[in-house]
Amino acid sequence: MMHYDSLQQAVAALNKLQKTQSAYNHALGVLYLDATTAAPSDTWEGRGQTMEIMSQITYDLLANPENGALLAYLEDNLEVLDEQVRREVEVIRKEYDRIHRIPAEEYVAYSVLLNDAQNVWQKAKNEDNFASFAPYLEKIVDFNRKFAGYYHPEMAPYDALLNEYEEGLNMATLDVFFARLRQVIVPLIAKIREAEPIDDSFLYRHYPVEQQRKFSDYLMEVMGIDRSHCGIAETEHPYTTNFNNKDVRITTHYFENNLVSSMFSVVHEGGHALYELGADDRYNYTALAGGVSMGIHESQSRFYENIIGRSEAFVHAIFPKVKELFPEQLEGVDETMFYRAINKAQPSLIRTEADELTYPLHIMVRYEIEKQLIAGTLAVGDIPARWKELYREYLGVEVPCDREGCLQDSHWSGGSIGYFPSYALGSAYGPQMLHKMEEEIGDIWPEVAKGDLSKVTHWLREHIHRHASFYKPGQLFESVCGKFDARYYTDYLTEKYTRLYNL
Amino acid sequence: MMHYDSLQQAVAALNKLQKTQSAYNHALGVLYLDATTAAPSDTWEGRGQTMEIMSQITYDLLANPENGALLAYLEDNLEVLDEQVRREVEVIRKEYDRIHRIPAEEYVAYSVLLNDAQNVWQKAKNEDNFASFAPYLEKIVDFNRKFAGYYHPEMAPYDALLNEYEEGLNMATLDVFFARLRQVIVPLIAKIREAEPIDDSFLYRHYPVEQQRKFSDYLMEVMGIDRSHCGIAETEHPYTTNFNNKDVRITTHYFENNLVSSMFSVVHEGGHALYELGADDRYNYTALAGGVSMGIHESQSRFYENIIGRSEAFVHAIFPKVKELFPEQLEGVDETMFYRAINKAQPSLIRTEADELTYPLHIMVRYEIEKQLIAGTLAVGDIPARWKELYREYLGVEVPCDREGCLQDSHWSGGSIGYFPSYALGSAYGPQMLHKMEEEIGDIWPEVAKGDLSKVTHWLREHIHRHASFYKPGQLFESVCGKFDARYYTDYLTEKYTRLYNL
Repeated sequence: MMHYDSLQQAVAALNKLQKTQSAYNHALGVLYLDATTAAPSDTWEGRGQTMEIMSQITYDLLANPENGALLAYLEDNLEVLDEQVRREVEVIRKEYDRIHRIPAEEYVAYSVLLNDAQNVWQKAKNEDNFASFAPYLEKIVDFNRKFAGYYHPEMAPYDALLNEYEEGLNMATLDVFFARLRQVIVPLIAKIREAEPIDDSFLYRHYPVEQQRKFSDYLMEVMGIDRSHCGIAETEHPYTTNFNNKDVRITTHYFENNLVSSMFSVVHEGGHALYELGADDRYNYTALAGGVSMGIHESQSRFYENIIGRSEAFVHAIFPKVKELFPEQLEGVDETMFYRAINKAQPSLIRTEADELTYPLHIMVRYEIEKQLIAGTLAVGDIPARWKELYREYLGVEVPCDREGCLQDSHWSGGSIGYFPSYALGSAYGPQMLHKMEEEIGDIWPEVAKGDLSKVTHWLREHIHRHASFYKPGQLFESVCGKFDARYYTDYLTEKYTRLYNL
Repeated sequence: MMHYDSLQQAVAALNKLQKTQSAYNHALGVLYLDATTAAPSDTWEGRGQTMEIMSQITYDLLANPENGALLAYLEDNLEVLDEQVRREVEVIRKEYDRIHRIPAEEYVAYSVLLNDAQNVWQKAKNEDNFASFAPYLEKIVDFNRKFAGYYHPEMAPYDALLNEYEEGLNMATLDVFFARLRQVIVPLIAKIREAEPIDDSFLYRHYPVEQQRKFSDYLMEVMGIDRSHCGIAETEHPYTTNFNNKDVRITTHYFENNLVSSMFSVVHEGGHALYELGADDRYNYTALAGGVSMGIHESQSRFYENIIGRSEAFVHAIFPKVKELFPEQLEGVDETMFYRAINKAQPSLIRTEADELTYPLHIMVRYEIEKQLIAGTLAVGDIPARWKELYREYLGVEVPCDREGCLQDSHWSGGSIGYFPSYALGSAYGPQMLHKMEEEIGDIWPEVAKGDLSKVTHWLREHIHRHASFYKPGQLFESVCGKFDARYYTDYLTEKYTRLYNL
């Protein structure tokens, strides 16, 4: 066991640990980026071996008992550490304790299970065969329930899982939040069903990929994304990854018969990217690098995607370019028609393709099911029936098969239970941030309408982006916006959709 | 220090070491691939840090004294090891000894230097500013001279460097080899200068990149490259990298006004790829994975590029597709004109664009300069002048600027000194292999003319590819072809160019 003769020595050891962790994260991140963007189809075997070895080394790097001694020493000296180091110690302690609370053999068994489950789920989805995935999901649920007890034995198990993805989030908060959303959104949808339908057929004409690529470049330019630090690639499912605050990558997926799918992927992932790019340099290569939580991350991506990207002002700014890129496809379409089309609300089956209004209902379905699964009040085998029931109840749609139902998302097979709610929370944070932003810098829309997002991004950078993971998510949000109040979100949705559909 | 109770235990430790090394090589390889194919321009800093840390870990992994004990134990039991493990021990011993001769801090400092040097060189090349690159090259030369002394203090430093890329190769051999080449090639070029010139202007018409990409796919298909295990990307300077025998990547560079540049990059790199893809599975994740030396590697790439790719038979096979892809550009061009055009010999400035005949003269220039740099008889600052002098002497061309002169190649900025000669050696190996191949399987050209390279590739796979690094390069070549004789190469060139130009 190492002894630390001086605080300086201990801080140096902490820095070395963090830099090494960052390097492995970078390497693993690039392996994943390569796998999803460029790797030939049958190359998974060697990559799997490399990732297994690297993951084991990363685990050992943190699990090393010397880190326990290091953390204890630093914790004994917290009052003389500067505030950044204090927070680093706190974050690393949380990770260290988490992996130490899980017995090594369970951790390994769980990793093996997840590895198998991903493949089984993919096959089950392709073949619309939930039964073949069910035994794996049962084990994943059991493991998660057990892990929840290891993380926080004093909490309800699902609260402990929620807390992993969004520190401080719990069922008490979410039950109120989701109840309020249902109360507002479900009647809005009912009214929209009666209203004059919006024509969005022109968004699904033939849009050549080469032109869509140019459109992506243009959108990133309007968003003020520095391309010398942010790349764009193409993947099956769009995502954002960051290696440090000067090297961020977003991905998109082009569909020849759909203009908006990639358009809003780019704006959404671009929002994630701006968050990462805006982090202060001081957090690079530390445990505080990168966005602090899924909820805050989604608040940024959805702010750009929905509040900005689906606004009249933004459409006004970009529409001339859209027409220039796609003159034939948009012949006879004006900016109002375009604005209305990209905001069309329509209950549907697939979460990732849902509009801004119905999206949180998809999340609610998953929340209800996860809650009951972890509480043990719903058996895995009953998920398909419950899924159909909830889609009928919340969205008013009939789910024809599990492939377009409870098998659609990769989250559960990847072991993520308690993750979904942060999507809805992120959406709800946005309007409250907008409210605060306008209180401080005034009406943002005249400049957005000129295609100038600099003031918006500057405000977000100052208040959110630059802090990376220095503050806990709830603390960060409250310090900027005050106490979270879902009413900003429901008011925003009500106003937007009432006006859009003349309700 | 660990003790090995059984041979089994020691062999398991050796396997674990090799698997871990393979994983790090994979990770470092993907970082490099990303850097050259997809990374945004200003992201080198974070990557530099990651590569520095990974290089240090890779260094420590091998330098670990336990490996010394492990190797010693295995060497004491060589007679009971199977022949593959014996060779693994031999290869790792060589690396272990080499790395122990380089102090760790020099190894890391050198890695950092190379990361910076790549960017500086790129900028220097773009700006035609050799002076800005010179201080970096000076340090690279100094490091290499020092390393040479660490590797083999008993050898002349440049011999020690040559030996790194091609075990057993030295200046004595190369001086004779290059003298013979000059003796044959320089008079041939003089005769060609007097002959009727070949019109190749149609190769430099406008060839859209999108069509060239399709052409690359077609060429890889004709070569029998399995695309589920081999990708293609675009880089400034084409290269091949392999993570294992089921995951190989080649790169090319498209020029809108040049059909042949990318065409022969693809065929050349495709030759490297076939070598890697053809390795026996048993060598994966061991120190014997991958091609054994640069010379053998170039013998494969140049076999496909020149002997096959620039043959009348190959042109006959692909010409209909070439016409189909580029009907306007090749209007009025027949296959004989195309064959002659792609073989036109003309002294020029850029090595990678050189024809088959003048190519070795470009190598000779670099050989002479490297030899003098390492011997200390040429200062880095004098490279541009010496470069111009040698191009005038060997090729009879005037070098107008360093961008098209001594800044053209990435090798030196990448730390590769002593590497260039293996290009010429590889070229010279090919005709001797062809001779042996035809002795064994008869005339290959009728099938090549049908676009069927399977017998050629099968022969090379059986005799060269599948062995990966199991044999030493000289041993491998001799076991297949007998003693190396440059005459096969000079005869091949003489015959081909005499016929082509009716000399």
